[in-house]
Amino acid sequence: MKNKHPKLNFGIELDESIQVDGVSATATKFGESFRGIFRWQQSFFKLVWKQAIIYYIVYVSITLFYSFALDSGNQANFDAITSYLARYTSSLPVVLLLGFFTSTALNRWFSIMASMPGTNRPIALYVASLKEDAADGCARVDLYIRYVLLMWLLTFRIVCKPLRKRYPSLLSIQAAGFLRDHERLLLEKHKQQPGGRSKTLPLVVYDWLNILLRDTCQKGYFTVANDFGRNIDAIQALKKGGGNVIRFASKNVPVALIQAVTLAIYCYGIVSVFSHQIEKHYLTSVLSGYFPLPYALPFFFYYAWLKVGRIAIDPFGSDEDDIDILNIFDGHINGAMRLRNCYGVKITIPSTDSSTFLLS
Amino acid sequence: MKNKHPKLNFGIELDESIQVDGVSATATKFGESFRGIFRWQQSFFKLVWKQAIIYYIVYVSITLFYSFALDSGNQANFDAITSYLARYTSSLPVVLLLGFFTSTALNRWFSIMASMPGTNRPIALYVASLKEDAADGCARVDLYIRYVLLMWLLTFRIVCKPLRKRYPSLLSIQAAGFLRDHERLLLEKHKQQPGGRSKTLPLVVYDWLNILLRDTCQKGYFTVANDFGRNIDAIQALKKGGGNVIRFASKNVPVALIQAVTLAIYCYGIVSVFSHQIEKHYLTSVLSGYFPLPYALPFFFYYAWLKVGRIAIDPFGSDEDDIDILNIFDGHINGAMRLRNCYGVKITIPSTDSSTFLLS
Amino acid sequence: MKNKHPKLNFGIELDESIQVDGVSATATKFGESFRGIFRWQQSFFKLVWKQAIIYYIVYVSITLFYSFALDSGNQANFDAITSYLARYTSSLPVVLLLGFFTSTALNRWFSIMASMPGTNRPIALYVASLKEDAADGCARVDLYIRYVLLMWLLTFRIVCKPLRKRYPSLLSIQAAGFLRDHERLLLEKHKQQPGGRSKTLPLVVYDWLNILLRDTCQKGYFTVANDFGRNIDAIQALKKGGGNVIRFASKNVPVALIQAVTLAIYCYGIVSVFSHQIEKHYLTSVLSGYFPLPYALPFFFYYAWLKVGRIAIDPFGSDEDDIDILNIFDGHINGAMRLRNCYGVKITIPSTDSSTFLLS
Amino acid sequence: MKNKHPKLNFGIELDESIQVDGVSATATKFGESFRGIFRWQQSFFKLVWKQAIIYYIVYVSITLFYSFALDSGNQANFDAITSYLARYTSSLPVVLLLGFFTSTALNRWFSIMASMPGTNRPIALYVASLKEDAADGCARVDLYIRYVLLMWLLTFRIVCKPLRKRYPSLLSIQAAGFLRDHERLLLEKHKQQPGGRSKTLPLVVYDWLNILLRDTCQKGYFTVANDFGRNIDAIQALKKGGGNVIRFASKNVPVALIQAVTLAIYCYGIVSVFSHQIEKHYLTSVLSGYFPLPYALPFFFYYAWLKVGRIAIDPFGSDEDDIDILNIFDGHINGAMRLRNCYGVKITIPSTDSSTFLLS
Amino acid sequence: MKNKHPKLNFGIELDESIQVDGVSATATKFGESFRGIFRWQQSFFKLVWKQAIIYYIVYVSITLFYSFALDSGNQANFDAITSYLARYTSSLPVVLLLGFFTSTALNRWFSIMASMPGTNRPIALYVASLKEDAADGCARVDLYIRYVLLMWLLTFRIVCKPLRKRYPSLLSIQAAGFLRDHERLLLEKHKQQPGGRSKTLPLVVYDWLNILLRDTCQKGYFTVANDFGRNIDAIQALKKGGGNVIRFASKNVPVALIQAVTLAIYCYGIVSVFSHQIEKHYLTSVLSGYFPLPYALPFFFYYAWLKVGRIAIDPFGSDEDDIDILNIFDGHINGAMRLRNCYGVKITIPSTDSSTFLLS
Repeated sequence: MKNKHPKLNFGIELDESIQVDGVSATATKFGESFRGIFRWQQSFFKLVWKQAIIYYIVYVSITLFYSFALDSGNQANFDAITSYLARYTSSLPVVLLLGFFTSTALNRWFSIMASMPGTNRPIALYVASLKEDAADGCARVDLYIRYVLLMWLLTFRIVCKPLRKRYPSLLSIQAAGFLRDHERLLLEKHKQQPGGRSKTLPLVVYDWLNILLRDTCQKGYFTVANDFGRNIDAIQALKKGGGNVIRFASKNVPVALIQAVTLAIYCYGIVSVFSHQIEKHYLTSVLSGYFPLPYALPFFFYYAWLKVGRIAIDPFGSDEDDIDILNIFDGHINGAMRLRNCYGVKITIPSTDSSTFLLS
Repeated sequence: MKNKHPKLNFGIELDESIQVDGVSATATKFGESFRGIFRWQQSFFKLVWKQAIIYYIVYVSITLFYSFALDSGNQANFDAITSYLARYTSSLPVVLLLGFFTSTALNRWFSIMASMPGTNRPIALYVASLKEDAADGCARVDLYIRYVLLMWLLTFRIVCKPLRKRYPSLLSIQAAGFLRDHERLLLEKHKQQPGGRSKTLPLVVYDWLNILLRDTCQKGYFTVANDFGRNIDAIQALKKGGGNVIRFASKNVPVALIQAVTLAIYCYGIVSVFSHQIEKHYLTSVLSGYFPLPYALPFFFYYAWLKVGRIAIDPFGSDEDDIDILNIFDGHINGAMRLRNCYGVKITIPSTDSSTFLLS
Repeated sequence: MKNKHPKLNFGIELDESIQVDGVSATATKFGESFRGIFRWQQSFFKLVWKQAIIYYIVYVSITLFYSFALDSGNQANFDAITSYLARYTSSLPVVLLLGFFTSTALNRWFSIMASMPGTNRPIALYVASLKEDAADGCARVDLYIRYVLLMWLLTFRIVCKPLRKRYPSLLSIQAAGFLRDHERLLLEKHKQQPGGRSKTLPLVVYDWLNILLRDTCQKGYFTVANDFGRNIDAIQALKKGGGNVIRFASKNVPVALIQAVTLAIYCYGIVSVFSHQIEKHYLTSVLSGYFPLPYALPFFFYYAWLKVGRIAIDPFGSDEDDIDILNIFDGHINGAMRLRNCYGVKITIPSTDSSTFLLS
Repeated sequence: MKNKHPKLNFGIELDESIQVDGVSATATKFGESFRGIFRWQQSFFKLVWKQAIIYYIVYVSITLFYSFALDSGNQANFDAITSYLARYTSSLPVVLLLGFFTSTALNRWFSIMASMPGTNRPIALYVASLKEDAADGCARVDLYIRYVLLMWLLTFRIVCKPLRKRYPSLLSIQAAGFLRDHERLLLEKHKQQPGGRSKTLPLVVYDWLNILLRDTCQKGYFTVANDFGRNIDAIQALKKGGGNVIRFASKNVPVALIQAVTLAIYCYGIVSVFSHQIEKHYLTSVLSGYFPLPYALPFFFYYAWLKVGRIAIDPFGSDEDDIDILNIFDGHINGAMRLRNCYGVKITIPSTDSSTFLLS
Repeated sequence: MKNKHPKLNFGIELDESIQVDGVSATATKFGESFRGIFRWQQSFFKLVWKQAIIYYIVYVSITLFYSFALDSGNQANFDAITSYLARYTSSLPVVLLLGFFTSTALNRWFSIMASMPGTNRPIALYVASLKEDAADGCARVDLYIRYVLLMWLLTFRIVCKPLRKRYPSLLSIQAAGFLRDHERLLLEKHKQQPGGRSKTLPLVVYDWLNILLRDTCQKGYFTVANDFGRNIDAIQALKKGGGNVIRFASKNVPVALIQAVTLAIYCYGIVSVFSHQIEKHYLTSVLSGYFPLPYALPFFFYYAWLKVGRIAIDPFGSDEDDIDILNIFDGHINGAMRLRNCYGVKITIPSTDSSTFLLS
């Protein structure tokens, strides 16, 4: 279960899953991205270098064609066409459409990240509120932990391709120990019922968790009676968070808007490369012919901006910039193990605490 | 109750109702919309193709009329008029007005989606908190489920035309099993009272739910006393969510603003098609006469942007992009059945749990 | 208490008060506003038609004066002045100032609408949590309902002129049955005390509600002990919501900003009408002289946009677009009556429920 | 404790403190600001009139100097310089920087206003949850009220100059009755301890409130056991709200941003006054020389916009537009007295309630 | 533990840590920043003065080179190149990209500041809810306080370099008294386990806190049973807040966006300095050659704006404008000591309270 690529992922690492190679790594990396703006990982340059090369080749080809293949009459015709096209660049509402799209996408992204469900709260709450002298306490905790992790896994399998690749079927989930044989059969039976689909499998596990909690309550295993309701709430929140993630992944920003803005940027790029005008002055003719900065820079800034928006729309893929759900899931497993080991642990209160800071 | 068109709807699928044909479908579809920007479903192109054809026909007609029907004097007059009109294009505050309108509409849409009420929480809570040895426990659960679904149905019938078409009257709701005879009479009686309208029917069912909860509490059927309050809250949230949906559907963005922005875009389109100037240069005269891209593209990007805003304003219709409420309601029914079957179910805690992952 | 004008108001209808003439009306109206952009009610056209006529008359007068009263020398002078003024139009930061103002105003409007207090929650909670065998249960419920409605009424009287017109004094409120004689005297006494004003009257009723709740708690009339706290919270929320409404109505967007943006739009309009230049070409001279679209359209789009913002700032008036508080209050009364009739009602659980949908 | 200037303050009036001279005053004032855009109080005109006069004097002086002191050669030089400077006006990114700044400032302002702590909730909760037969009930309520008001006062003294002026020292607070002698000594002792400062004084009072609540709980004076937690929460909220206010006042928008935007606007103004070009046409030379509207209007709209942002950043001062904290504090005192008088008050439930509206 | 630099930090001071040199200092400082826009601390000028000097030197060097080293032919060439480059300045989408970036960064900053975890609530809650006659009450409180502070410290060590410098290792934390020997060994053991890293250390302390709370509950030391759940929640909130801070510090705004906007601004600056055109008129040639305001001002306003955004992205460093975490931590320690001393303190209710304000 070791993650092969322990580098930082775009975005965030959830609760249990913060797994960078030590503290300094993060800090350096973090500082790096500000001190040197020429960092490569997840960078602007990495996003655009392929497009930049193609852009440059096309640009120079047009210049060469213009300079050496066209006579002066055809050059005049060419100039007429390019200046006609150039009008497009200025009339296109690229910036505001782009800003609207990217800010919508990032807002959605931030809000989904803020509401991504975690397994820590329900597990910690259950472990804390279960009486320690319960007959089958440990088995109960194990079962609860397994169900919570299973529910999380089934939810994120729906939206996250890498997770689907690791756990391609219910059998593989069973093999990984999250599912028992009779439970798998129940899940498969559910899928054959009306309205039963892969997307409703987490809800079946949610039912199991509710039943388990009710059983715990009825047997009087909760330390405080109200803990029953608190545990039910934690499971509800897990379900709701999962539903939000699925909704977000299915649709967040209208397809037509994404297409419109992508098309607009591509049109802008194509026009900007074709409409470049070869200046008559011998110095600027070289500049304008072989150094397309005034044409290319706006396009590539737009392009990178667009990319940021599109990455924010589809954060559960396997790109470098996407959220590393596999990593996060491993973190959830580790956290669950840690919390499980807390059940029944006693603490001794030192009779006197003579810490330095308490005496200061 | 099978949904005939299981394709993804614009927007979101609520809790229980996520009903796409399996997992991979979503993923592919989701990837598709980003890899190929030429997808057709819910696309930019589908939104604008009719307008684009009309636009092109008008555009070319004007060019033909100009080139073949007008002599050079009239052509000069025509040029004068078009250049006068063309001023309009640049002076019109289209972009910012449009951005303001669309972002307001999408914000409203996101917030209404986030607060759309579901039936899962109240039902799950009731099932979990009802004592299992209650004499009429099952009948009580059935009644509660039926009332919750009925309240949801009556609420969304107000705003959603397809749902009104499926359940055109209280009798048809009774025929579908959500209403009993004496209950229908009570609802009809309520409509004749002062202040009683179709819009207040869900409130009557809300009263029934409150009475049912109080009855359950007084008979001591709740496992924990505080569950009474928690169930009351869940019903309150359902009522509040329904009220928000109705308010949102009745009015969300001022009509005058919608009209202003729609008129501005249409004016922009009409002017852009009429004001096109035939260039004198023989090459660009062909381009400007028959390839209206510099005129048409901005308009169609604006138009698609406007459409996105207007779809966000009216999400409960029967368009392809609207929220499929019928589908969602079927999901709520299936979810309710699932939760109902959890009532009274016992769970056995395995004495030892030797899952792989617990030993890792 | 029948509302004479049952048309939809700009904005929202709160909880109990949704009172449109049936369901289809809303839907049609709603659809209308999108299908036909030429609807009149609350429309763009209704907002601007008077200004448009004045604008046109002034515009044509100037043209006529220019064409027939000025000789060519004076015409040149006139042209010089108008072209000097025309600079103003382009230099004025109208769009962004306007967008800033309107989006601030609408955001405030949405947030106040979301936090407008309702009477349903406190009343429903009290009715649900009061023991049914309480000696004076019904009288207690009646008193509670009356106080809640009175507190809502006194709060909204502060901000809403139509409500003040219907209930001009405490005596008229007493005549309507919301106040008893000794209570009115207490309120009037409070107004004479230091810090006592019309604005603090709802707080006195809030005190009464607190006292009533404490009395109910001490007599042991709440079914569950914790219900006391929940009822206190509901009253607190009502008070807080009322405070928010008063604060919003007193001040929401700085006066200086409203003045600046209004002045800017008016200046823009005046300059646009005076700075219109009569083209020399005989065709465009007619167009520019008598068809002021390129000058007028931007102004009227701005003007409508401004109006939307100003309506959002003052939503409690008696304009067509304002929130119909009278209507909402009637809805609250009806809802209170409905909830009151729930107190003590018994429900019978059918022994078997053989609804169609439960068997599916 | 009567407020000398009972006019409306910019911003909001908090809970208890709404103190306008009666209802109609507000309404009129409110309406006024919309009907007449020429109102003076807190107006655009009041914000800019001084600057406008200076602007006009400088502007006309330059014109006079240009017309009468310079010969035609120097006039040409002058024209060259002004046209060079005029470029600045168009290249400066004034509008967007300004919009960004003002919207950030107003958002912060709205959010701080929404989270400003009030004394009503903790006091009302304590009064409502304290048993009426507690031996020292009244003294306990008095002490609690005094501590809550003291904590509020000590918090707002940190940020609000007028409050510091009214209560310049702990002795003056003691003189006003909010502090007793031994308490003042404790506070002064705290200030000498490490980490003890004026800013931590409210935290000491917060500790007293916690101790008082624990004492009330241990003596069994709360009607319902859970009320202890609810009261603790109310005090926590008061502390948190106070912390937010202090944080907001210390720093909210980065100083560099405020300076940048202020400098940009001032530069814009200076350039606009110096770069005005005297037109050659005899009519427009008068216009451009003595009627600087096209130059001045944009500047003054920017300037008013800037002012709105800066007022929003520093709302606790003593300007006309600032929040009248003195007034609000008086309101809190009055409200506390009102709530105190509720303790122990009995209510009689009328045996029958025959109000008109209940029979309708 | 005295903070050497007690000056105000950019941003906010959290709960316990407000440590300015008295009240008036803040007020003056606060006022200062508005009255004088020429303040130096954290100012616009301090942000840009180095860049401004370099900019001016380069600018003047180019002018001197142009004026004295180039003949008129080369000057013409130079003019051609600069006018070609100057196009870049106008075509670059600097403003909107910058506005988008900065507003995203500031929004994130405000939201992280609002959710920064504090130690006050968990400690105050524990102290308030612990029975005073608990056998080992004081030791228990001491232990709890130590764990809460330790968890806070371990969390912020991950993101904050100055804190890592003060406490470079677990041993140094132990030396400071926050950690005991056997606890340090447990933490070190955890780091060797799979999934154990520096980032998961706070979670181990979180487990200890949970165990301690359960122990307190089982021994019946909570005054009210429900306090157990409330304390668990407070610890959960601390953990969640810490997770948010770590997530925020690891990644908040995509690197590519930061690079794009930084590059765009730098390009803008370089082009603006190189593309400056020497006017031909002898007066303006001096102005344009040696007074680069029209070129430099927009750049420096952009630059300061950019800086504000970048400071907001990395708030935990050791710059003058960053949040002073060391200071805040000292405040938390002081606050913890203060709360600890509240445990077991008795309060005497004065039999009569004759405060002035109560008699008013």
